[in-house]
Amino acid sequence: MQQFEWIEGGICAATGFKANGLYCGIKKPANPDPSVKHKNDICLFASDVPCNTAAVYTQNKVKGAPLLVTKAHLTAGGNTALAVIANSKNANTCNADGVEKAEKMCRCVAAEMGIPAEQVLVASTGVIGQVLPIEPIEAAVPALVKGLCYRKNAEAATAIMTTDTVKKEAAVIFELDGVPCKIGGMAKGSGMIHPNMATTLNFITTDCAVSAAMLQQALSETVKVTYNCLSVDGDTSTNDMVLLMANGLAGNDEISAEGTHYETFKAALYQVMAALTRMLAKDGEGASKLLECLCSGAPDLDTAITVAKSVICSDLLKAAMFGEDANWGRVLCAVGYADADFDIDKVSAAFASEYGTVTVCENGSGVPFSEETAAKVLASDEIQILVDLHQGEAQATAWGCDLTYDYVKINGDYRT
Amino acid sequence: MQQFEWIEGGICAATGFKANGLYCGIKKPANPDPSVKHKNDICLFASDVPCNTAAVYTQNKVKGAPLLVTKAHLTAGGNTALAVIANSKNANTCNADGVEKAEKMCRCVAAEMGIPAEQVLVASTGVIGQVLPIEPIEAAVPALVKGLCYRKNAEAATAIMTTDTVKKEAAVIFELDGVPCKIGGMAKGSGMIHPNMATTLNFITTDCAVSAAMLQQALSETVKVTYNCLSVDGDTSTNDMVLLMANGLAGNDEISAEGTHYETFKAALYQVMAALTRMLAKDGEGASKLLECLCSGAPDLDTAITVAKSVICSDLLKAAMFGEDANWGRVLCAVGYADADFDIDKVSAAFASEYGTVTVCENGSGVPFSEETAAKVLASDEIQILVDLHQGEAQATAWGCDLTYDYVKINGDYRT
Repeated sequence: MQQFEWIEGGICAATGFKANGLYCGIKKPANPDPSVKHKNDICLFASDVPCNTAAVYTQNKVKGAPLLVTKAHLTAGGNTALAVIANSKNANTCNADGVEKAEKMCRCVAAEMGIPAEQVLVASTGVIGQVLPIEPIEAAVPALVKGLCYRKNAEAATAIMTTDTVKKEAAVIFELDGVPCKIGGMAKGSGMIHPNMATTLNFITTDCAVSAAMLQQALSETVKVTYNCLSVDGDTSTNDMVLLMANGLAGNDEISAEGTHYETFKAALYQVMAALTRMLAKDGEGASKLLECLCSGAPDLDTAITVAKSVICSDLLKAAMFGEDANWGRVLCAVGYADADFDIDKVSAAFASEYGTVTVCENGSGVPFSEETAAKVLASDEIQILVDLHQGEAQATAWGCDLTYDYVKINGDYRT
Repeated sequence: MQQFEWIEGGICAATGFKANGLYCGIKKPANPDPSVKHKNDICLFASDVPCNTAAVYTQNKVKGAPLLVTKAHLTAGGNTALAVIANSKNANTCNADGVEKAEKMCRCVAAEMGIPAEQVLVASTGVIGQVLPIEPIEAAVPALVKGLCYRKNAEAATAIMTTDTVKKEAAVIFELDGVPCKIGGMAKGSGMIHPNMATTLNFITTDCAVSAAMLQQALSETVKVTYNCLSVDGDTSTNDMVLLMANGLAGNDEISAEGTHYETFKAALYQVMAALTRMLAKDGEGASKLLECLCSGAPDLDTAITVAKSVICSDLLKAAMFGEDANWGRVLCAVGYADADFDIDKVSAAFASEYGTVTVCENGSGVPFSEETAAKVLASDEIQILVDLHQGEAQATAWGCDLTYDYVKINGDYRT
């Protein structure tokens, strides 16, 4: 893998990207006292010059109105865009006037910035099926545009948070023929998250020059092994969207075909997207532990992904990890019902963390292990479940989290 | 549908079936005081004459040893059997000596009863991957056989309970050309339960004369719309098995082809299996509410089943139902990611219970509803989610339960 370095800046890390975020009133104020700063609920980010833009959307049949509008705008604009507006607390989905209002959000931004509405994309996240209040958004757009700044990435990243407890940002710098390029991103969690789509809202920006076609290819290939290998609760959201915007301001020769430069770009993109995926898993609703399942020794990549995801999605295993109980039978059970073709009798399994590793199963059967060691390993807040199929060279990681009382609590009364 | 009547007796309801259950020591005694009666952990039931026997097994690649032995015995015995031995607390799965011990259980019973070992079937449920203590089982077999009785169905039904809080039994009587026939059954839950197999352990007995082929057809067709439409936690168990045994002692003309008699038998079988399915859902681990999703207006049965199951499996919806929150967006979301082909824009949805009905969605969009009425409807401990696709005549029901703190608690530390 090419060398890269972690940097600050999130979606503003790459040259020529500004952002802003503020509270406009979609979220109910936690404290009605106007002197208290409210949590941001709307954000805008924009590039100084038009960006080639790639996108991946949810595969849910119920598609949020913002997603339909974003897709239409990208088609109309030849897969280029200048700005993205996004709100939290309301998904603007399953509303009769949803598309109209999503269009309105874009038109407001376009008018204020003096750009075509098709160059503005839109995303929403929050409760499904509640009418979106458009007035506070309209009222906020002038301030949003006026306050756009090359360093307000955190203001934007906090504005897309719903039940997230921390904002998620990551960025890297790398070189192409001596030209420094940057990729940065932000993401929101933390419930209704499940593979088979672009999970949740994820926005990635880069100053690297990449053709629209290669940008889409890099995004699709990387989503497969990052966001699509993530599950918090098995529910595929209606509003999932990943946008990857490339403005070319780094000044490298445009990547327009496969080859070394494409591979370098993709490796850096993987770092950012995998880091965000891990953050999303760790901040899963109610989560107390990050779970990573590494499936190795698989006959092919798809088998490795399928098995790793199956383990990460098991409610029973997730509850056992919450209880720090080395109930490895549940790992084998989930490996066994994964929809893939392999020999279960060769499988080995282990639990690992910074406190050590404990092998619990070999050749599909249990092996004696120390419950004391297992308890020590599972006391960590980051647990690896190592599954080796012993029938090939492919491997994949899937990310998830434990199932806790708090998940139930959060989701027992989410709308209020 | 043919007339039938509910009767007592569980697996002993049909003529010529005896049962017994007792505590042999696989379960740790809740109270070490020997004067306290322990919970049963082993059972045996047997027919006075050989039974045609149909079976459905888990589709998990990890298959419990008892399941492999049962399958082999049915093949060797031409799909006939005389007796079934079953234990709880230990699944005898993923153990190197699993098959050997499952065979041993059958041989002990066979020797004591003086019948061929191939006429004895075996099932186990409980923790996966712990060595099965065979000694207490061997020691218990003489008493198990000696105590077989036409009225000890409840002793057997309690012996297969794991985290179940109540035993599950159902039985009906119906007539074929004036000949009274009976079907009865017992089942255990209550975790690691998910469609796509014969869910959990289910034993059904009948005195109706049915050929082995028609018995298998009736079982497979009925499993599809009962046990396979049930999910507690999305985990497909390694030890799932449904056995249906018919001894012919009712004296009817053997059902050996499709026709009126077959349909009558199948309708009665559906009643018993649907009743047990409903009991399993209601007693799902940690459950406080039974959830039933009726998907109607579907273009075909498979679409109806797929949609109904998708709704029942949504952790987010399950948590919302626990919180009595009419978050119908989660219903639409789960309908939307169901793997079936239909037009989402025609879908309507409602919540219903004995306290009323509240329509929340029409033509794929939200409609105004009274939160007060919704709260009243959802206060019930049996909630129906009505999804009408409005694009056909087919319908199906799926059964599940809410997701609660107790589910997490039970599964955080299941092994001890």
